[in-house]
Amino acid sequence: MPQRTTLPGRTAARTAAIIGATHELLREVGYEQLSIDAVATRAGASKTTIYRRWADKRALVCAALLDRSVSAPELPSGAHDLREDLMALTDLAAALADQEDVPGFVSLLAAAQKEPAVGEALRNGALDPMRRNCRDVVQRAIGRGELQDAALSDVLFDLVLGQVLARSVVQGKAFTTDVREHFVDTVLLHVLTQHA
Amino acid sequence: MPQRTTLPGRTAARTAAIIGATHELLREVGYEQLSIDAVATRAGASKTTIYRRWADKRALVCAALLDRSVSAPELPSGAHDLREDLMALTDLAAALADQEDVPGFVSLLAAAQKEPAVGEALRNGALDPMRRNCRDVVQRAIGRGELQDAALSDVLFDLVLGQVLARSVVQGKAFTTDVREHFVDTVLLHVLTQHA
Repeated sequence: MPQRTTLPGRTAARTAAIIGATHELLREVGYEQLSIDAVATRAGASKTTIYRRWADKRALVCAALLDRSVSAPELPSGAHDLREDLMALTDLAAALADQEDVPGFVSLLAAAQKEPAVGEALRNGALDPMRRNCRDVVQRAIGRGELQDAALSDVLFDLVLGQVLARSVVQGKAFTTDVREHFVDTVLLHVLTQHA
Repeated sequence: MPQRTTLPGRTAARTAAIIGATHELLREVGYEQLSIDAVATRAGASKTTIYRRWADKRALVCAALLDRSVSAPELPSGAHDLREDLMALTDLAAALADQEDVPGFVSLLAAAQKEPAVGEALRNGALDPMRRNCRDVVQRAIGRGELQDAALSDVLFDLVLGQVLARSVVQGKAFTTDVREHFVDTVLLHVLTQHA
C-alpha cells in the first residue's frame, strides 16, 4: 500500500513548499502585496490546494509565522557562564534582525494594527523563539547559581527585543559583534546580576 | 498696510492647519491611505495651496514629522536628581507611545522601508525630541555630579526607545507609571550609574 505511506510525506513536502514560499514572499514584497496567486506559483502548488487548507491570506501568513517558531534554532548548549549565553542569545537576535527581514517584519506589524490575528501570530510565532531562548538563558544561570529570579526572563526579553527594534528596525544600524558585546557587558549583565 | 502684517499670519495659520490635518490623518488612516485630497478637505485648504508648497504626499508627511520635532514638549526642569529626570523622560516617552499613535507610527515605519526620505524624517523628526531629552537628562546629571560620560545619552536613547517599541508597539502593553518606575529603578539607573 505505497499510497498510504507516500501521501503523508507528499503532503508534508507540499505544505513545507507553501510555507516556505510564503516566507520568501513576505520578505520580498511584504504582507500587503503578498497574494495567494504568487504563493501558488512560487510553491508549484495549485490555488485550490492552498485554499483547501487555509481560508485566506491571513490564515496562511499566520500559519507560516507559527511554523517559524517551531523551526527556529535553539540556543547552543556549550556556554560556561551567563555572559557566554547572553552573547549566543544576542547572536540569534541579530540574525532575526537581519536587514533583509526587516521590511517583511514591519509589514506584518502594520497588518497587525488592523488584523489582531496577525498581531497574535507575530507575538506568539515570530517572537516566541526569542522568548524561549531568554527563558533558557535565565534558567541555565539559575542552574549555575549565577541568578535566582526566574522572572528576569521577561526583563531580558524586553531588553533584547527592544535593542533589536530600536537599533535595526528603526535606526537601520547593524547589531555587530562589537555592539553586542557592549550591550551584554554594560546593559544586560548589569541589569540581570544586580540582585544576584 | 494691513495686508503686509496680516498675510504672513494667515499663511502660518494655513500651514498649521495643513500640518495638523496631516498628523490627524496619519493617526486615523496611516501613511498608505493618506491622500492630499483628504488633507485639503480636513484643513479647509485647496489642493493647489498644498501642491504649491509640497511636491507630493511624501514631502508633506516629511514636513509634518519635522514640524512635530520642533513643537514637541521639553523635559520639565524641576527635577532634583537623575531619577526624577528619568521618570519625567519615560513619562514623555509613554505619551509618544500612546496606543492611538501606534498604527500611524507603524505605517510610517512600513513606508520608510521603500522611501528612505520617510525613514529619515521619522528618525530626525519624530524621534528627535526623545533624543534631545535623553541628552538633556544626561547633561543635567553631569551638572549635578551624578554622571560623567556624555556618551551615555546614546545608550539611554536606545534603551528608552527600545522599551517603548518592545512593550507598546510590538506587545501592545501599556507603559504605566508602575512599569516605568520598575524600568527606571532596575534598568536605567543601574546601567547609567555603573561607572559613576
